[in-house]
Amino acid sequence: MHTDAIAFIGLGSMGAPMAQNLLSSGMPLTVYNRNAARAEALAAAGARVTASAAQAVSPGGIAVTMVANDAALEAVTLGPNGVADTLGQGGLHISMSTVSPETSRKLAAEHAQRGSLFLSAPVFGRPEAAAAKKLWIVQSGSSQAKVRAKPVLDALGQGIHDFGEDPGSANVVKLSGNFLILSAVEAMAEALALVEKSGIDRSALASFLGQTIFACPIYQNYSQILAKRAYEPAGFKLELGMKDVRLVRDVAEQVTLPMPLADLLHERLLASLAKGRQALDWTGIELVSAEAGGLR
Amino acid sequence: MHTDAIAFIGLGSMGAPMAQNLLSSGMPLTVYNRNAARAEALAAAGARVTASAAQAVSPGGIAVTMVANDAALEAVTLGPNGVADTLGQGGLHISMSTVSPETSRKLAAEHAQRGSLFLSAPVFGRPEAAAAKKLWIVQSGSSQAKVRAKPVLDALGQGIHDFGEDPGSANVVKLSGNFLILSAVEAMAEALALVEKSGIDRSALASFLGQTIFACPIYQNYSQILAKRAYEPAGFKLELGMKDVRLVRDVAEQVTLPMPLADLLHERLLASLAKGRQALDWTGIELVSAEAGGLR
Amino acid sequence: MHTDAIAFIGLGSMGAPMAQNLLSSGMPLTVYNRNAARAEALAAAGARVTASAAQAVSPGGIAVTMVANDAALEAVTLGPNGVADTLGQGGLHISMSTVSPETSRKLAAEHAQRGSLFLSAPVFGRPEAAAAKKLWIVQSGSSQAKVRAKPVLDALGQGIHDFGEDPGSANVVKLSGNFLILSAVEAMAEALALVEKSGIDRSALASFLGQTIFACPIYQNYSQILAKRAYEPAGFKLELGMKDVRLVRDVAEQVTLPMPLADLLHERLLASLAKGRQALDWTGIELVSAEAGGLR
Amino acid sequence: MHTDAIAFIGLGSMGAPMAQNLLSSGMPLTVYNRNAARAEALAAAGARVTASAAQAVSPGGIAVTMVANDAALEAVTLGPNGVADTLGQGGLHISMSTVSPETSRKLAAEHAQRGSLFLSAPVFGRPEAAAAKKLWIVQSGSSQAKVRAKPVLDALGQGIHDFGEDPGSANVVKLSGNFLILSAVEAMAEALALVEKSGIDRSALASFLGQTIFACPIYQNYSQILAKRAYEPAGFKLELGMKDVRLVRDVAEQVTLPMPLADLLHERLLASLAKGRQALDWTGIELVSAEAGGLR
Repeated sequence: MHTDAIAFIGLGSMGAPMAQNLLSSGMPLTVYNRNAARAEALAAAGARVTASAAQAVSPGGIAVTMVANDAALEAVTLGPNGVADTLGQGGLHISMSTVSPETSRKLAAEHAQRGSLFLSAPVFGRPEAAAAKKLWIVQSGSSQAKVRAKPVLDALGQGIHDFGEDPGSANVVKLSGNFLILSAVEAMAEALALVEKSGIDRSALASFLGQTIFACPIYQNYSQILAKRAYEPAGFKLELGMKDVRLVRDVAEQVTLPMPLADLLHERLLASLAKGRQALDWTGIELVSAEAGGLR
Repeated sequence: MHTDAIAFIGLGSMGAPMAQNLLSSGMPLTVYNRNAARAEALAAAGARVTASAAQAVSPGGIAVTMVANDAALEAVTLGPNGVADTLGQGGLHISMSTVSPETSRKLAAEHAQRGSLFLSAPVFGRPEAAAAKKLWIVQSGSSQAKVRAKPVLDALGQGIHDFGEDPGSANVVKLSGNFLILSAVEAMAEALALVEKSGIDRSALASFLGQTIFACPIYQNYSQILAKRAYEPAGFKLELGMKDVRLVRDVAEQVTLPMPLADLLHERLLASLAKGRQALDWTGIELVSAEAGGLR
Repeated sequence: MHTDAIAFIGLGSMGAPMAQNLLSSGMPLTVYNRNAARAEALAAAGARVTASAAQAVSPGGIAVTMVANDAALEAVTLGPNGVADTLGQGGLHISMSTVSPETSRKLAAEHAQRGSLFLSAPVFGRPEAAAAKKLWIVQSGSSQAKVRAKPVLDALGQGIHDFGEDPGSANVVKLSGNFLILSAVEAMAEALALVEKSGIDRSALASFLGQTIFACPIYQNYSQILAKRAYEPAGFKLELGMKDVRLVRDVAEQVTLPMPLADLLHERLLASLAKGRQALDWTGIELVSAEAGGLR
Repeated sequence: MHTDAIAFIGLGSMGAPMAQNLLSSGMPLTVYNRNAARAEALAAAGARVTASAAQAVSPGGIAVTMVANDAALEAVTLGPNGVADTLGQGGLHISMSTVSPETSRKLAAEHAQRGSLFLSAPVFGRPEAAAAKKLWIVQSGSSQAKVRAKPVLDALGQGIHDFGEDPGSANVVKLSGNFLILSAVEAMAEALALVEKSGIDRSALASFLGQTIFACPIYQNYSQILAKRAYEPAGFKLELGMKDVRLVRDVAEQVTLPMPLADLLHERLLASLAKGRQALDWTGIELVSAEAGGLR
């Protein structure tokens, strides 16, 4: 079955380098993207480009999806000429997008009805990390799905972390991670405003933190971006951050958990959107703190 | 002048190992602690123990203070038989406690009137780090004070980070750091509750975070404490965390900056104190999130 | 056309007394309720009871709906044998439930396609106010719809307040009103805890407020309920309050507006639900404040 | 003893009309104000004007204070030539300023040591209400003090509400009231932004609320100010609102009670001050909500 090409659907800023890595690992690849232009570089590298998701998928084969949101994932999977009907008996769908746990559970059930497997496998890392095979992958789903997906995931990241059988679990972990990252951004934004208003150099605080008590990449990189207010070009757009925090709040409501810090982040994001900052990097929520302190 | 003994005042869980390190570095030491029993181990190691702060201090010499809070620092410095009057012309006061920037500015002015120098030099690190000379020291004050204090600080930590001439600046940085740490705790607490209520193992999330996107000690250590709810014995008591967040809010009010995340932390701490948890580790604010979600 | 009976759909704690008032005003009435038992009292008073919504509705006639939520309203209107298809050309649908503005806009468009009118007309008031014709009605929609609905609304309330042509506007006003009421509850809850923890009689504060600076029914009634913690039986269930605050947050997100106070109310409601308090009166969110202060 | 003149200290926008009312009631009055110009109108009306607080006060007589804040009250009471020492044995101090409960308790104890009584009696109402004898007065302290103060208070307000013996209680009630009022402002501000961003007339919502579910003066008056954003001239300055919310937070911390809504109000006030709005009416916090929604 592995002689069949793997179908890779969704060639955005994350999907394109991931697909490239599968090709580089020697896996035959069929690719589909709504905007065909993005598939050209992969065609040059040996991928077969198709005109629909269904054409990319082989019955009983493997399909990897990396699309923008829940609606896009549902459309490509369950829509007419979708992945689910085409994969059918014996297939495997590896879903790597950041979506809600509910969508994963629903798709897993739909695939099960058709005799195919579903693995939820979202990733942590920016496009550069994707290109460098440095993604962190979190997975959840059936053991069979994990075994069969392993060579594909190994070719994409630097480590796979398992969160059990519920196909929604990996999504909850991915959303929790993004929540934690943006919480760190908010905390740094408030601290940087506090030192700036106290007459202290913002950059000095940022450097100190990254070299000492928070010597890990997220604090090191983000504190520099925040100290300089370097929100363009965006590494991860603010409007995508909003999508993720919205999903965090949805899960929190479903499991009946108050998350005041998630609410605060949502307020920061909404205020940013109300000022037309959807295309800034998501760290740009810092401007809301700065403005509230009269710094701009 | 360096042949005089250094006076070390305040032998709590941080001060005692710090004083020990000065002794081990070959510096003659005179020590004072309100509770004399805590001075015995240092006496055994060669320190001279005195019955008052004033007796420990040599005119024109160096005094290091590591006491509980602003009131204690003011009392020991400006009270009868205090450090300020005794040090007098040519002295140096190295103040390492976590106090408000205002107190540092006030003490610096008082010392200046008496012809002595004042260096604000609070530290990051728990008692184990103090014992291992692994403290991170932040300093601010006059250049003269920094030059003269350097050998002392070098004997206490693994690095000195400078924040300029305003004696209050180092305190603002120290308070900002503690604010950032407790913000990370709150974020982890909410995320852990979210995964637990979603049926996912808390410890699995903690391990994942520490190994991947937050591979720095604060996330690694605190996520484990939080996952296990291991709040006793306290590494840093919740009531001390309250003191520090209160100081953060005081500075924010003075510089006219809203800090909603600091307010949230204050609410968590107050709720913890209202339930009698002042002696738990400050990470114990997690229980408030858990209880709000019906987890306990 | 007015000789046709008016169809009244939804005989819950609000709908039943409202339908009764239409009957008492001499309007012929056909009623439908999912749970038929609730229709008996109205049958005894002269209403014709039908087995489906469609059977209650006369083509070209008037249908009033007072159902639990958006899903119920959509089902009864657009589902098989729904109000929309049955009303058809020349009909009028008066929608009095608390639903989202989006649902009203959608239903108005669906009715327009079928040649019928739609009026959004939610109400303020508890069941006792409904029985006493003391409801406050807010309306929005086309002028034609308002003219034709007027006799019906006059028979139900003590005043009609108009908010223009957008069928969603009345819903936004209704949701804003409930947001304001629950905000007052939260404020009173915090104030009552403050005085109680200061050794002052809660009831004394409640009486003072209602007699002086807040001499209006919401503060008068709710401060007494809150002072006594008399949350059972529920006048308006906490889980219904959650539904409304959820709708407020949905609108806020759609119009890109941060509403931190709405977020706080949502946190209070979620914490209440997590403790199994869905059947308490919505003022029962007070318990969350009290518990956070160690009062219970 | 009642033949002695009553001393009235503090002739600000509230104190001046209150003193005028005592004169109009036929009570002989001696007045003192730091800024002597403000005493002229009262002199014309028959008051004796003195050059210090001490000169205004008769030993064993009655002194009424209505000053700006805790510091001013302490200075005028306990400072050199202060009210306390001059009143002495058999005197009564009626303290009507908005101050902390701690200050009242401290002053009551100081007076007791000198054989005089202290009554805490802060008021609700703006200057117009003071002029019209329409203040609501809340009191706490000893029974003796209440009996002797009654004729004075009767001449100043439309009702006295008693909160027991603890001299701090009346202050807690006063602070709670101001907290409730500003909470209502914040709620209205958010609701008005929600309707405005939904395309609905702000003034229509304001009128509706005041006529229906919130038919009491605070909602009626403030909703109109908010709808029109008429924050100048200030009825009650934003910086005074900040003082009061700061006192609320201080009490909350002393009694160990989280008050997230008070924290939100404080954030709104701080953001307003950071934008230089200290002289606007305190309802001007609304601008923060509006700006966060991109409305200005």
